[in-house]
Amino acid sequence: MDRPPSAMKPNFSLRLRVFNLNCWDIPYVSKHRADRLKNLGDFLNAESFDLALLEEVWSEKDFQDLRRKLAVPYPAAHYFRSGIIGSGLCVFSKHPIQEISHHVYTLNGYPYMIHHGDWFCGKAVGLLVLHLSGLVLNAYVTHLHAEYSRQKDIYLTHRVAQAWELAQFIHHTSKKADVVLLCGDLNMHPGDLGCCLLKEYTGLHDAFLKTQDFKGPEDGCTMIKHNCYVSQQDLGPFPFGIRIDYVLYKAVPGFYISCKSLKITTGHHPHHGTPLSDHEALMATFCVRHGPPQHSPSPPHSECPFPWPFLTSRPPLHSDLLLPSALPCLGPAEKSSLIRVLRDAWMEMGLGIARARWWIAFAGYVIGLGLLLLMLLCVLAAGEGAREVAILFWSPSAGLVLGAGAVFLFHVHEAKGLHSIQAELQHALKKAKEAQALGAEPQLAPLLGQQEGDRAEE
Amino acid sequence: MDRPPSAMKPNFSLRLRVFNLNCWDIPYVSKHRADRLKNLGDFLNAESFDLALLEEVWSEKDFQDLRRKLAVPYPAAHYFRSGIIGSGLCVFSKHPIQEISHHVYTLNGYPYMIHHGDWFCGKAVGLLVLHLSGLVLNAYVTHLHAEYSRQKDIYLTHRVAQAWELAQFIHHTSKKADVVLLCGDLNMHPGDLGCCLLKEYTGLHDAFLKTQDFKGPEDGCTMIKHNCYVSQQDLGPFPFGIRIDYVLYKAVPGFYISCKSLKITTGHHPHHGTPLSDHEALMATFCVRHGPPQHSPSPPHSECPFPWPFLTSRPPLHSDLLLPSALPCLGPAEKSSLIRVLRDAWMEMGLGIARARWWIAFAGYVIGLGLLLLMLLCVLAAGEGAREVAILFWSPSAGLVLGAGAVFLFHVHEAKGLHSIQAELQHALKKAKEAQALGAEPQLAPLLGQQEGDRAEE
Repeated sequence: MDRPPSAMKPNFSLRLRVFNLNCWDIPYVSKHRADRLKNLGDFLNAESFDLALLEEVWSEKDFQDLRRKLAVPYPAAHYFRSGIIGSGLCVFSKHPIQEISHHVYTLNGYPYMIHHGDWFCGKAVGLLVLHLSGLVLNAYVTHLHAEYSRQKDIYLTHRVAQAWELAQFIHHTSKKADVVLLCGDLNMHPGDLGCCLLKEYTGLHDAFLKTQDFKGPEDGCTMIKHNCYVSQQDLGPFPFGIRIDYVLYKAVPGFYISCKSLKITTGHHPHHGTPLSDHEALMATFCVRHGPPQHSPSPPHSECPFPWPFLTSRPPLHSDLLLPSALPCLGPAEKSSLIRVLRDAWMEMGLGIARARWWIAFAGYVIGLGLLLLMLLCVLAAGEGAREVAILFWSPSAGLVLGAGAVFLFHVHEAKGLHSIQAELQHALKKAKEAQALGAEPQLAPLLGQQEGDRAEE
Repeated sequence: MDRPPSAMKPNFSLRLRVFNLNCWDIPYVSKHRADRLKNLGDFLNAESFDLALLEEVWSEKDFQDLRRKLAVPYPAAHYFRSGIIGSGLCVFSKHPIQEISHHVYTLNGYPYMIHHGDWFCGKAVGLLVLHLSGLVLNAYVTHLHAEYSRQKDIYLTHRVAQAWELAQFIHHTSKKADVVLLCGDLNMHPGDLGCCLLKEYTGLHDAFLKTQDFKGPEDGCTMIKHNCYVSQQDLGPFPFGIRIDYVLYKAVPGFYISCKSLKITTGHHPHHGTPLSDHEALMATFCVRHGPPQHSPSPPHSECPFPWPFLTSRPPLHSDLLLPSALPCLGPAEKSSLIRVLRDAWMEMGLGIARARWWIAFAGYVIGLGLLLLMLLCVLAAGEGAREVAILFWSPSAGLVLGAGAVFLFHVHEAKGLHSIQAELQHALKKAKEAQALGAEPQLAPLLGQQEGDRAEE
């Protein structure tokens, strides 16, 4: 039995080995699925990580097969079910899982974009609470909406909204955790708005940027051209690779965590042969020990560049030309990373709301026209001249009205969701500005650091 | 500016006045809406509660009007947007709101039950974090799915699922809170399975059962026959009234909270005249002060009766006749309230999954038959004999296939959601049984009390 939390011995240190992989396990679609899953099971069996967090395991049968195979080194396992297809998320743990929870993202693409399919998967974040040698570890695994085109990314707003919900979920559920770990396929590049929002709001560090020993592809890319399952189309304007899978972490003051090593596969199986997936696997080793509360005199260095490295074809979102009247007036002193990123996310939600309203209006017009058409067809059917044509067109017209009604309702729901997130962002922005006005550094402490403050006092 | 949390002075006591009302503010439907909201605004202005938590404010314009009217006594306010119509939840606070979040319930009725309409509202739980004189207060407001027929309640499983999600949300987000407060219309009677699940899992107390001074209708009913907006049909088999609106609360050890008084209106305006809503308003006064950690040698008394007082026409859910093979074998020692309630909720999810699977199979057959019909119509249209009839029936048949497809997808989503909740319940049940086997009382401590244990140690 594990010791109760906060009972970790002084001078005790804990080594934590974590594995993360987007498994590309899509029945009837993914190549060499059975072989790759067999290899994955063999590898996890041989390595015995503390935690293995997987994404895109879309077949529950595959999870059950893996569970049986990994029962000895990983006696605890969980599959996160959601949506219509599922979340694709699962975990295998060497240690008992104390608590399990999850959150399904409110917005996740559009049902009529059937060829992209994300809407049908209940994209989510899963939470495990573990007690390791008296230390409370909150481990999160997630997978955000895919980016199908970087030049014209119609899902950007939804992905930023998901990043905010992820940040909120981690923030509110980890207040009693000693160590927080987030693994997953964020489908965002390191400097993207959503990625910066997540890191700035939660205070999570990027293992790739902080590790003492890195082995893997250049720039830490997790989808690379050397992987035989990756096409040039997958990489878009980045011919050598992209970094979209992450291991992020933090510890509260009183604990010290360091990333001893991070290994990313290089387009092959970790040991030999064909790769485990079209994504690369991440293997991180952490060391956690008691440490003094960290009080840095200078503000912590932000891991996010500014302005965000959007493609040059796209104007920066913080441009004052966008929605200037609704934006709270910001002074020159308010240029900290957190305030900037909250403001830009707030504006992105505004753009999304405007688009959703356009669709609502468009669907409304179609419904109106469809109803007029139906009335006209009824009149024609009542007469003699064009009765057959009228009857023939009645059902398609009714279908048009129903279809437009569904689009109308979907975008009303989308606008409500974006509006809700925008209001939360605005509140967080207000609080960050209040904290800055009082002279505190709003990077993390005022919003998140109650627990940190308390622990430091203790 | 409030003091930071956990900085509450020793020997300091805090008085907290809370107002809760399901406002019955449904545009075009509710009677005397404008008058009632005006009276509500006047009353809240005059009384100046610390917190006013409202449900069924379905019109955002009405919220904005109230916000303007209440700007002086309640400078902080928030409206929780979700779903298509909205959550109907809003809050007005005398004190600054530090943090805001919310969770939309995964399951909330059926879209084809248009006349009930709950599916179109994004039923949710809203969270506010407040710092009051150095004390961290987490206040939650919620509204669960309505119960339209107690004899044949087709929404029971969804309501129990919502109660579990509510309990999980409160549990995971309140680990650092000193005081937790939940107000809302739970649409459950005090002894109902979902209500017991919520109270047993979170350790929340019912203000009506604990208050030192109660004024209001008999049995604390919050929908009563004396209210002119309530019909006998609303009350079903309970002619005098039902209790479905609640104020629930708890404090962590180290703090002592008592409900000094609870007042429920009696079918009239609190001062005079017509009632504010078809529900009664709840007004509670709490006193919070520092207190010694409470270590009761005997297990705390459960507020839930057993067996649950279901209608006599319905067999108890814990009957071993239901799903006996899948239920983990329970020994005679495992009859604590929490284990019983988790087990019964687990079984209710099982029944819901079986119903969802029936619908999935039924919709699957309809899709198959519809596709056969479409092929037949294509063959007929290609011939000469019945071309016109074939063309006439083609669109309705395609509509049938699409409609059945939508039903199929909806119930797959429902089954996934219920399955996910059942897995979480099973995990909680396992942990509770492990704790009981170790001799600990599984009522609250092993699942929830990490924070309590920690504080006690401090």
